[in-house]
Amino acid sequence: MPQEGESFKVTPWKVEGKVDYDRLIEIFGTSRIDDPLRERLRKVLGNDLHPLLSRGIYYSHRDLPWILDQYEKGNPFFLYTGRGPSGDVHLSHLIPFEFCAYLQRKLDVDLWIQITDDEKFLFKRDLSLEDATKLGMENLLDLLAPGFDPRRVHILFDTVSIRTLYPLALEVARRVTYSTARAVFGFSAENNIGSIFYTALQSVPAFLPSRKEGRAVPCLIPCGIDQDPHFRITRDVAEPLGFPKPALVHNLLVPSLLGNGKMSSSSDATEGAIYLKDSPEDVQRKISHGFTGGRATVEEQRRLGATPEVCSVWALWRSRFAEKESEFAEITQDCRSGALMCGECKARLIPRVQKFLEEHQTRREGVRAWVSQTIVDAH
Amino acid sequence: MPQEGESFKVTPWKVEGKVDYDRLIEIFGTSRIDDPLRERLRKVLGNDLHPLLSRGIYYSHRDLPWILDQYEKGNPFFLYTGRGPSGDVHLSHLIPFEFCAYLQRKLDVDLWIQITDDEKFLFKRDLSLEDATKLGMENLLDLLAPGFDPRRVHILFDTVSIRTLYPLALEVARRVTYSTARAVFGFSAENNIGSIFYTALQSVPAFLPSRKEGRAVPCLIPCGIDQDPHFRITRDVAEPLGFPKPALVHNLLVPSLLGNGKMSSSSDATEGAIYLKDSPEDVQRKISHGFTGGRATVEEQRRLGATPEVCSVWALWRSRFAEKESEFAEITQDCRSGALMCGECKARLIPRVQKFLEEHQTRREGVRAWVSQTIVDAH
Repeated sequence: MPQEGESFKVTPWKVEGKVDYDRLIEIFGTSRIDDPLRERLRKVLGNDLHPLLSRGIYYSHRDLPWILDQYEKGNPFFLYTGRGPSGDVHLSHLIPFEFCAYLQRKLDVDLWIQITDDEKFLFKRDLSLEDATKLGMENLLDLLAPGFDPRRVHILFDTVSIRTLYPLALEVARRVTYSTARAVFGFSAENNIGSIFYTALQSVPAFLPSRKEGRAVPCLIPCGIDQDPHFRITRDVAEPLGFPKPALVHNLLVPSLLGNGKMSSSSDATEGAIYLKDSPEDVQRKISHGFTGGRATVEEQRRLGATPEVCSVWALWRSRFAEKESEFAEITQDCRSGALMCGECKARLIPRVQKFLEEHQTRREGVRAWVSQTIVDAH
Repeated sequence: MPQEGESFKVTPWKVEGKVDYDRLIEIFGTSRIDDPLRERLRKVLGNDLHPLLSRGIYYSHRDLPWILDQYEKGNPFFLYTGRGPSGDVHLSHLIPFEFCAYLQRKLDVDLWIQITDDEKFLFKRDLSLEDATKLGMENLLDLLAPGFDPRRVHILFDTVSIRTLYPLALEVARRVTYSTARAVFGFSAENNIGSIFYTALQSVPAFLPSRKEGRAVPCLIPCGIDQDPHFRITRDVAEPLGFPKPALVHNLLVPSLLGNGKMSSSSDATEGAIYLKDSPEDVQRKISHGFTGGRATVEEQRRLGATPEVCSVWALWRSRFAEKESEFAEITQDCRSGALMCGECKARLIPRVQKFLEEHQTRREGVRAWVSQTIVDAH
């Protein structure tokens, strides 16, 4: 965590301050998803790139061109993403899963999902393990709602699938010193011994398909940039253990509607995030109060325009609610020019979000029939 | 590990120097098994106390009187012991298992055994996990050969039983800081993160029966005194987690036949230990070369006598090969007086050990039929 002297701090468990995402690429040593790479992605994925790619929410990567090389050579990758179940799922948590659903539809690839109930128990003093496990089971319905091929989904639910996970976690753990974990995560001597070990578990899904198949199966991990430290460790131990280094694509963290840090279910600020189970009234209230990039007065905003880049409402349009690129471009331009007032923008967005959540609930119930069949070691 | 300034060092993974067992009681803060306590044990166990008790090999304890109180009140305890499978089993490893077999015969109590293949993999760079697991399975046949009631044996084999072990290990781990683990075990920043976490696993069997039965089931742990640091942690976290503190009885570590440190399969010095699979020729050779407490010349020894307390051959008589107390007293006295020469003593011992190993092999094969039935989660 070499973030000393920065005005923000990003770890897998906490994001503080206003994150400078460009700076984070330098600090973490990742690569930007630039225009030439986006062009290459269009060749593989089609011209209608997913908004998460075309609008730069997936903005950083490690070894993404290598994954595309492998795919084009006929050695398809698998996807790996996950969630630590510390509360209900909100819109931001859905991003990697929507992205994986898109990649699976386009490329017919397998998806491995890790649910880290152990992690959340170890890092949150006020959460019981029983509750973390229950939350994980409930969360899965939300996370799978974007639409997956059940035959190509494999869930590693840490406390359930531990017999499959543990041997490889031991192999990882033997190669990671406390000194390394401390440097990567910023641990102190007061961290508990489970929290120090935990990262070994998060490496396992990147290696498991290679171990099972007895050959090098490339892995692509879509995740929030805050999770990158875990996978630096994964990449460091991969080759000594005989596995290919996993590639990553990193998304920006969706800003809180309250205008502070990332949208998080972990803070008390439930008003800062739209939860997938929120009622139409919740959506109305939260977006109406949402932090924007507007000016102090209507007159000033008409004259000078607003700043979409700092606006939590614009971030929602950007992530999924502007369906067409033309609409997203128009909203952005009208915001910047002063043609679109924040109240009007919010009033347009609210029914979109309400409709999305309503449809999500239906999709979510459709998952219930098959989800438990895909949990490794559950039966 | 507050052993600075001592001429020896005892950790669960390494014993260095000549151990002062009396001093170890002070350093570890345990209690001596003294004559009044032995008298009380006779009341519960019968007058024919096991040689391991009557000859002071079980010499230290924590809360043993409490366990006897509980037993007498009709709240019987269960036994918990274990082994880290880093090689073949030798006579010293058998001590806690022989002691448990005796207690089970006398008191009809359950035995929980932990086989820590994960631990040995994490602490030994040259051991593969696969080999550790295989060794564990083979070791079990030896360890169970002393004779147990199969219906009252429960084996927690770490990589096999991890789904049962892991949730409780997480509960333990959340309550143990790195700072504590470092102080108890003497870890450095170069220890791997698995080795730091591992102790949480070793606490679990002490709590599992209470968790399963939903009531406080007392636990007695017979183990080598070198394992005490793990159980200091177990005892520290017990009450906050709602479990009774386990009691312990500690045995001395059997000295190497080479006269240095404890009898260990971990060192290259296979000549220092009698393995349960040793041939009659191995036994002959190893004991013939065994380090003794004898004098430089026969004449001197006749005149001054020898010193049984430092003799690795006397330690074998003491641990199990002098079957009757009268014989043990006679050997000890004749050694000290100079009536018994080392060569003669060894010549008497060798056929006893050869016979023991031969009978052991038969008992060992008898275990094969049922051992796998007692491994938790194996089926």
